[in-house]
Amino acid sequence: MNRLWFALVLALSGAASFASVSQADEGMWLFNNPPRKYLKDKYGFDATDKWLEHLQKSSVRFNSGGSGSFVSADGLVMTNHHVGADALQRIGAKDGKDYIKEGFHARKLADERKCIGMELNVLMSMEDVTARVKAAVKPDMKPDEAARARRAIMAEIEKESFDKTKLRSDVVTLYQGGQFHLYRYKKYTDVRIVFAPEQQIAFFGGDPDNFEYPRYDLDITFFRVYENDKPARIENHLKWSKNGCREGELVFVSGHPGRTDRLNTVAELEYLRDTGFPFLMQRLNRLEVLLDVYSERSEKNRTIAKDDLFGIANSRKARTGGLAGLLDPELMAQKIAGEKKLQEAVKNNEKLKDATDAWKKIATAQKVRAQLIRRYTMLEAGAGVNSELFHFARTLLRGSEELPKPNGERLREFRDSGLDSLEEELLADQKIFPEYEIVKLTDSLTFLCAELGFKNPLVQKVLAGKSPQQRATELVLGSKLAEVGVRKKLWDRKGSQAVKASKDPMIQLARLLDQPAREVRKRMQNEVDEVKQQAYAEIAKVKYAVEGDSTYPDATFTLRLAFGPVKGYEEKGKKIPAMTKFAGLYERSKEHNNKPPFDLPPRWEERKSKLNLQTPMNFVCTADIIGGNSGSPVVNRDNEVVGIIFDGNIQSLVLDFAYSEKEARAVSVHSAGIIEALAKVYDATELVNELLGKNGQSSRR
Amino acid sequence: MNRLWFALVLALSGAASFASVSQADEGMWLFNNPPRKYLKDKYGFDATDKWLEHLQKSSVRFNSGGSGSFVSADGLVMTNHHVGADALQRIGAKDGKDYIKEGFHARKLADERKCIGMELNVLMSMEDVTARVKAAVKPDMKPDEAARARRAIMAEIEKESFDKTKLRSDVVTLYQGGQFHLYRYKKYTDVRIVFAPEQQIAFFGGDPDNFEYPRYDLDITFFRVYENDKPARIENHLKWSKNGCREGELVFVSGHPGRTDRLNTVAELEYLRDTGFPFLMQRLNRLEVLLDVYSERSEKNRTIAKDDLFGIANSRKARTGGLAGLLDPELMAQKIAGEKKLQEAVKNNEKLKDATDAWKKIATAQKVRAQLIRRYTMLEAGAGVNSELFHFARTLLRGSEELPKPNGERLREFRDSGLDSLEEELLADQKIFPEYEIVKLTDSLTFLCAELGFKNPLVQKVLAGKSPQQRATELVLGSKLAEVGVRKKLWDRKGSQAVKASKDPMIQLARLLDQPAREVRKRMQNEVDEVKQQAYAEIAKVKYAVEGDSTYPDATFTLRLAFGPVKGYEEKGKKIPAMTKFAGLYERSKEHNNKPPFDLPPRWEERKSKLNLQTPMNFVCTADIIGGNSGSPVVNRDNEVVGIIFDGNIQSLVLDFAYSEKEARAVSVHSAGIIEALAKVYDATELVNELLGKNGQSSRR
Repeated sequence: MNRLWFALVLALSGAASFASVSQADEGMWLFNNPPRKYLKDKYGFDATDKWLEHLQKSSVRFNSGGSGSFVSADGLVMTNHHVGADALQRIGAKDGKDYIKEGFHARKLADERKCIGMELNVLMSMEDVTARVKAAVKPDMKPDEAARARRAIMAEIEKESFDKTKLRSDVVTLYQGGQFHLYRYKKYTDVRIVFAPEQQIAFFGGDPDNFEYPRYDLDITFFRVYENDKPARIENHLKWSKNGCREGELVFVSGHPGRTDRLNTVAELEYLRDTGFPFLMQRLNRLEVLLDVYSERSEKNRTIAKDDLFGIANSRKARTGGLAGLLDPELMAQKIAGEKKLQEAVKNNEKLKDATDAWKKIATAQKVRAQLIRRYTMLEAGAGVNSELFHFARTLLRGSEELPKPNGERLREFRDSGLDSLEEELLADQKIFPEYEIVKLTDSLTFLCAELGFKNPLVQKVLAGKSPQQRATELVLGSKLAEVGVRKKLWDRKGSQAVKASKDPMIQLARLLDQPAREVRKRMQNEVDEVKQQAYAEIAKVKYAVEGDSTYPDATFTLRLAFGPVKGYEEKGKKIPAMTKFAGLYERSKEHNNKPPFDLPPRWEERKSKLNLQTPMNFVCTADIIGGNSGSPVVNRDNEVVGIIFDGNIQSLVLDFAYSEKEARAVSVHSAGIIEALAKVYDATELVNELLGKNGQSSRR
Repeated sequence: MNRLWFALVLALSGAASFASVSQADEGMWLFNNPPRKYLKDKYGFDATDKWLEHLQKSSVRFNSGGSGSFVSADGLVMTNHHVGADALQRIGAKDGKDYIKEGFHARKLADERKCIGMELNVLMSMEDVTARVKAAVKPDMKPDEAARARRAIMAEIEKESFDKTKLRSDVVTLYQGGQFHLYRYKKYTDVRIVFAPEQQIAFFGGDPDNFEYPRYDLDITFFRVYENDKPARIENHLKWSKNGCREGELVFVSGHPGRTDRLNTVAELEYLRDTGFPFLMQRLNRLEVLLDVYSERSEKNRTIAKDDLFGIANSRKARTGGLAGLLDPELMAQKIAGEKKLQEAVKNNEKLKDATDAWKKIATAQKVRAQLIRRYTMLEAGAGVNSELFHFARTLLRGSEELPKPNGERLREFRDSGLDSLEEELLADQKIFPEYEIVKLTDSLTFLCAELGFKNPLVQKVLAGKSPQQRATELVLGSKLAEVGVRKKLWDRKGSQAVKASKDPMIQLARLLDQPAREVRKRMQNEVDEVKQQAYAEIAKVKYAVEGDSTYPDATFTLRLAFGPVKGYEEKGKKIPAMTKFAGLYERSKEHNNKPPFDLPPRWEERKSKLNLQTPMNFVCTADIIGGNSGSPVVNRDNEVVGIIFDGNIQSLVLDFAYSEKEARAVSVHSAGIIEALAKVYDATELVNELLGKNGQSSRR
């Protein structure tokens, strides 16, 4: 489930109509700058300071990448099953149990289990420190100096704040540098798992229904934060709505969208539409078929390839949705209009003239990117040598070259800050499956031939006079890098000498490819990434000069407010209703003859007759969300929980670039469905009472 | 199963070592020109006239595309289940039964069921008529005249022979025109089905195991030919081997390989390796993922897409194997050497000088093909508008334009000879599934954008300002062509006037695309196909001048003899044994938890304890086979049945272009496995006795 969630972070994007901000429920708004007027004018809703503060302080960020909320005074936190799955799996591994499959339920506080390494943050205050940060950067500084000065003042502000308040203090860059805000977080590090349903119901429908709607998922998990070994007393927590939301009702989403690219120029979107996404999809389709075929040959194979296959299918879906959005002329028209507006501003404002060529520079960089992307993907990103063993070999080889260099001059992944995780990956005692390696390497070498050309001298050297399969077989069976002991001998944090003497065939291959791979990476960095970074900074300045904070900044994994009505949509000429019911869950399972991934956990079969099948299960709304919003609470005007976000439909995958409300939808579990399931399927009376504020927590202690 | 079989015909092709004819068991030999010396020298085997005649006359060709053999004096014919499946399905449809699933077993002659439209041919004699055919073509004739003269003399010879013998008489072109032989066939048209097992055991392992080895398939079916409503008396039929074959034993295959392209020049193979196959694979991967995702959404979807998906997966596998072979440098080296030899001959022989530029012409044509293939595939082959409704629209539109023209000037598919089947397809009352149509059309329009470019003016016209999904939805939901009545009104064998006035959106789209599609088709025809045809004719002449009939001609769906030992191979560093046993069948099913397509028919579960699990089930040999060989008998030196061909492994898919014995293998059902299954699973005592020649047929009458 990790993958879905990271994939969401990396990928959330649909196909739809794109109106301008003023007419649509667009935006991932800052809590200290919400669209009060719009909410008042369109919905007659007053976003009071008190209402905002309560929702803000009831919202929780999972440091591992998701969102959540306090739902009781005793520290109960609700999030998605897929946000909590990693922690759950680790506890299960310790206990020798499969809590992912079986679910987890601590009926007493004493049974709640601590999750190692989990950190939750609650945003306590926001302060605009833009003036102070900007003052530290003098006009005559070179870009490098300016960046250093900016980092220094940010660190100073953070330290000052921490010393004063003992709260985690982050200076957050907003509007691509238009504003800097000091965010203070209360930190919870004693987080314990309370309840998780079976993954089979949390992720009912599995990969086929992932990113789709209608859905029938109970994608929830409850944690509890502790202080001094006792449940933390939580002043701001969300009350539960008695009836949940109804179709057409305005709802709000408070969560931590990870990243959006709404500043993307038309040239960059065209690159993605015409080159980037199609090529990526070609590669994903190829891998999906390859791993599918491999999986179907045996159950053992299926287990080996399962995680890779899920990740690939997930990315493929995300790109399908994103590409569909980019191919919608309405989106492009909106983007072109927005771009024109900014360019007009540059023409008419002498102070903005530095940005004059920014769009042209990005367009040129995209052309270079289009020329390099295939070679870059094959050689540097590893698509032409898809093998764990090759990955080890390259890390060992590059480690021996990079680590003796000063930190700042190394390739990014070899800098001190990343070395621990790199080492952990390289030296973990993971099992390597030779046949799987051969299958992947054979296919990727074949792909290399197609993309770079069979007669390409480098390709000929890689193949060494063999066919891809023969070559892959001799490389995989000839390499000793599958043994962790061998890798350890070749690894040295100060730079290994042993690698230089190694005759391991994979290391020899990595050596052969290294120079060409580094060359294309360097070009991509210098001619694309750096050019883009500078040009986008210019455009961001223009945008901020024109719009200021009249709008929301791009997502940065900080707390945001989104909103919109609960609302169905039309897809391929069919009406998709806003809500699903428990009855639909059972129907969908039956439709598929209860076969995986449409089978139901035994408890759900047994308790069917007890359930009110008319209870709402999932619903969609038009709120503007993206990866990182997983687990965000959905509340009504009274700040009561009416649901929890767990996915976006495939059409929502364009939200990376632009908001749309035609078909893009956020998908939530309905609050009434949660209560019904907890009470009647899981007999979790104590949890229901706690959520509904009955008897409080007292009865459980 | 039809698809497998046609796919075999179109596609059979692996990766392996390629020796020259003289050192390897290569060849699809003519029965009147077998490699006697090679067989004698290498195996000490005398291919006597009597031995050859007996095998020839025991061999049967199915006019629908497969092979078979007489296995009793009473007209019993053995072939593959997938060769007989169509007939079986039709009889089942009549009876309201699913004989594909349940199997079929006529225990008495009276229960044997006639298959409408089935024709079996037995080759009775071969006569070299080369001199007479060549004499009819005068040296001063233009190519057109020469072709006409050749067709005329061939027709004359065929008529003469038929009048004299009443046997079906075909003048067969061999060695690409180097020789012409008159083949006389005895024709059987009263063909009745006797026995077929459940498809589940005939095609055990389904798509995942298709083209793979080890295998465990009972891919057999028995028919009986009748004359005058009685079982035909068959003089030449194959006896059953008492013990079947063993590893290392020399075996022979007599069957009808459909088509090989072993004359292909290096330039053409390079085109296929570098452009043709990679692009085709890209398309197949894309379609496979699309239809897989669609299928997994519901059981109804699965049923709708099943046939398409099977066909696509089948083609994808075939191309994977073919491409792997083309990427083997050993194959290319062999091809380059062969080509050089022919070119040397041209240099040294004044009479062959017309062929001097043939290779260069083909190379030029391949360059044009590489330039055109994407546009051709998208616009003319329909990959950019993948929709049944569009296919209807184009047929209607082009019919209205083509049918008023003289027969010879029409596009090939509108010539009189093909009109019946074209009309049958267009006017059949098949159900159209709008959502499936939208899914396929959306994806193919997206593909069109990627391949031709989103900004291409034609693409912009096709999209009409909409996104691919919006456009696909309006086209599919707006068209009335799903109704057969509407199509009938727009169809006229003399050329419809109604089409011209039609405002149906699909017909409008077909109209928009017609000119550009015709243009690229015309260029492909003139600059590629015709150039190739002429140049290959020249090269064939050279080859024949150099080699004469010292070797075998390319496959032409006429009877051929292949041979080689029963022999395992090595794949990805693993030894693959030559034979499988019944025990392995049960193990493989268990490995997959008996889940489809690895489930066993109930009878096979019940009878497991009765079976000798050590009985051989399938085996591989090195014989040179290709699509069309499905159902070919495999015999030993004593002309006894030891097996029946039913597949080639994935490595054998290169046999289209060149023989290899390193990994390419023909896959057969073992004769002992057939008897064991008939006796102990199906209680088919009467059939076993007939095969073993015990009590003959008398006991059954």
